Amino acid sequence: MRPEVVKVMQPYFEQYFGNPSAVHKEGMKTKQAIETAREQVAKAVQVRPEFVTFTGGGTEGNNLAITGIINALLENGKEYSELEVITTKIEHPSVTKTIDQLNKKGVQANYIEVDNVGRVNLESLKGLLNEKTVLVSVSYANSEIGVVQPLRQIKKLINQAEEKFGTKIYFHVDGAQAPLWLTCRADSVGADLFTLDTAKCRGPKGVGILIRSRRVKLSPVLYGGGQENGLRAGTENVAGIVGASLALELATNDFKDRAGRVAKVRDKILALIAIELPQAIINGPAGDARIANNINISIPGLDTEFATVVLDQAGFAVSTKSACAGAGGGESLVVKEISADPARSASTLRITLGPDTKTSDIQPLLEVLKRHIKQMSALTK
Amino acid sequence: MRPEVVKVMQPYFEQYFGNPSAVHKEGMKTKQAIETAREQVAKAVQVRPEFVTFTGGGTEGNNLAITGIINALLENGKEYSELEVITTKIEHPSVTKTIDQLNKKGVQANYIEVDNVGRVNLESLKGLLNEKTVLVSVSYANSEIGVVQPLRQIKKLINQAEEKFGTKIYFHVDGAQAPLWLTCRADSVGADLFTLDTAKCRGPKGVGILIRSRRVKLSPVLYGGGQENGLRAGTENVAGIVGASLALELATNDFKDRAGRVAKVRDKILALIAIELPQAIINGPAGDARIANNINISIPGLDTEFATVVLDQAGFAVSTKSACAGAGGGESLVVKEISADPARSASTLRITLGPDTKTSDIQPLLEVLKRHIKQMSALTK
Repeated sequence: MRPEVVKVMQPYFEQYFGNPSAVHKEGMKTKQAIETAREQVAKAVQVRPEFVTFTGGGTEGNNLAITGIINALLENGKEYSELEVITTKIEHPSVTKTIDQLNKKGVQANYIEVDNVGRVNLESLKGLLNEKTVLVSVSYANSEIGVVQPLRQIKKLINQAEEKFGTKIYFHVDGAQAPLWLTCRADSVGADLFTLDTAKCRGPKGVGILIRSRRVKLSPVLYGGGQENGLRAGTENVAGIVGASLALELATNDFKDRAGRVAKVRDKILALIAIELPQAIINGPAGDARIANNINISIPGLDTEFATVVLDQAGFAVSTKSACAGAGGGESLVVKEISADPARSASTLRITLGPDTKTSDIQPLLEVLKRHIKQMSALTK
Repeated sequence: MRPEVVKVMQPYFEQYFGNPSAVHKEGMKTKQAIETAREQVAKAVQVRPEFVTFTGGGTEGNNLAITGIINALLENGKEYSELEVITTKIEHPSVTKTIDQLNKKGVQANYIEVDNVGRVNLESLKGLLNEKTVLVSVSYANSEIGVVQPLRQIKKLINQAEEKFGTKIYFHVDGAQAPLWLTCRADSVGADLFTLDTAKCRGPKGVGILIRSRRVKLSPVLYGGGQENGLRAGTENVAGIVGASLALELATNDFKDRAGRVAKVRDKILALIAIELPQAIINGPAGDARIANNINISIPGLDTEFATVVLDQAGFAVSTKSACAGAGGGESLVVKEISADPARSASTLRITLGPDTKTSDIQPLLEVLKRHIKQMSALTK
């Protein structure tokens, strides 16, 4: 977390502790803090404050966006079996498993083909859109392999389908990876539902933000008090909300400079990897089609779970897959989907760069990795 | 929040920021912090750590407990229409509205009668228990009128019904109000599902705890990563969890002394009210049947929403109903249920005592209230 985010949260722990739903001064103070935070978020993404909902995290936001749309349609008299959603097989578990759950209840789930870097195939999407489609859910940037999806072109196809079928098709974009590196302006993203998780942009864990467009009618997934305009029951995490909105503002303020700088570091490291580790295969696209802070390689034949432990001992925190996909054995479902290559999907290594990571920070990591690969190869000879 | 709770959370904002699901040192550090917190909670309520689940708040906990039981039964082949739940009409909205939602899907909801202080009628419960009953949900202490329910006797009737019908009937207790004032030992509470909200015991907002018994099979209500043993998807709010577990430990450690002391203050104030405001009607029971920190009166004919504003200006933060039931006009549904008296349910005033509130702190409040009532009465003459 940014120090200024930690600082802005402090008064809401001991000094301003009122329940925001209460009518007394203490409650009004925290209610006002939440509404100021909402305006801050609204300004950062350029929507009206009423279209900003605070949730308990990115996962809850994705659940609310997807199940919330379906629930609202059900309440409007639709049946599960009349509804279809379109997504990909490389989404975060909080999207995939939510859709699996709806699928069990009768909603048909259709999967857009992705190419060998994970980019959605627009022709495939076009073929899936039909008069029963109510939702398309695609991530802004993939959490494992960093591919940035062509949101504008997807939106255009959705709009064409809406005209053709005379229906409403909502566009959900999981933007958890985005704020530090990509524009989050609502008109650029073009989503009806845009999920953010401020733990991913140097804000607190346990707070999410769901942005929605004017035309969205959403039902809640958690029931209780009327907080967040009836969309998210439960006493608000005031300190978290205040910290989250500042983190988002600071992330979006100067994302362009940050992304430009870090993308250069990323590309230098990718070039180094090509020289130093010629057996490595890069997972995901190159250049602007990849989020600035993501590097993901496969080293077929290497036990990369073990390699992460060796790198960890040397002071480098890297991972193999999405942390939410769980630790331990098992291949990357994302890389399996784009490569259909078991050796490649079982040997992924993800290196995430920070805003201040330099090429010289990563060179020693590559040295450790090279040495480790040499040792492993000597052992198996 | 207690200062020591705020303090224990701090290192998890900037220093220990790892994702607990990651395999590197930073992740293991926060994973360990969560497991230590889980052990702390387990010890405080006397269960095994595996039966402790951290949630995003009390509301989410009640949703998970109730809908989680029903979802697990549905996954086991049951239909909504085969299931019945039993509750009361004076529960918190996070229980009532969750059950309403299940009711819309076909689950029958049956309501235990409560007496004129809000205590559940055991004969009524006995009459409602049948072979289709799968869940009984009752609060430990009512959030508005403070009535402590006879959990042991309820549990006994449930056990008898289970034997009679050869079924399993889960017992859910919303314990949000309890930790500072009532025993939270699992064997004393006797619940299969016991919901806690640490914001109510001087811990952080946005963290809840769900304790379950060995025999409970629960399904999640939010889908995504496998965190919290598959029961609560989403990156864990590490700082919040660490703070919550300390708050719970400190609350439960010395609840008896605290409750004894504050109950005496409460009773002195109730005696004062009887003298100073003879027109006031006390809502809820007297003595041990009432949670130590709760005072709730009705002053028929008085606009108590306005009175709270006047008291607020004098420095007293009081409320009329449950904050989660929303501010603004409208009567107390709880007092309406126990009294069937519109004048009484429209004129409630709830005064919540803190661990250090003294009788002398409340005397000036009563003076302000008396003066205000006199002014109002002069105006309407």
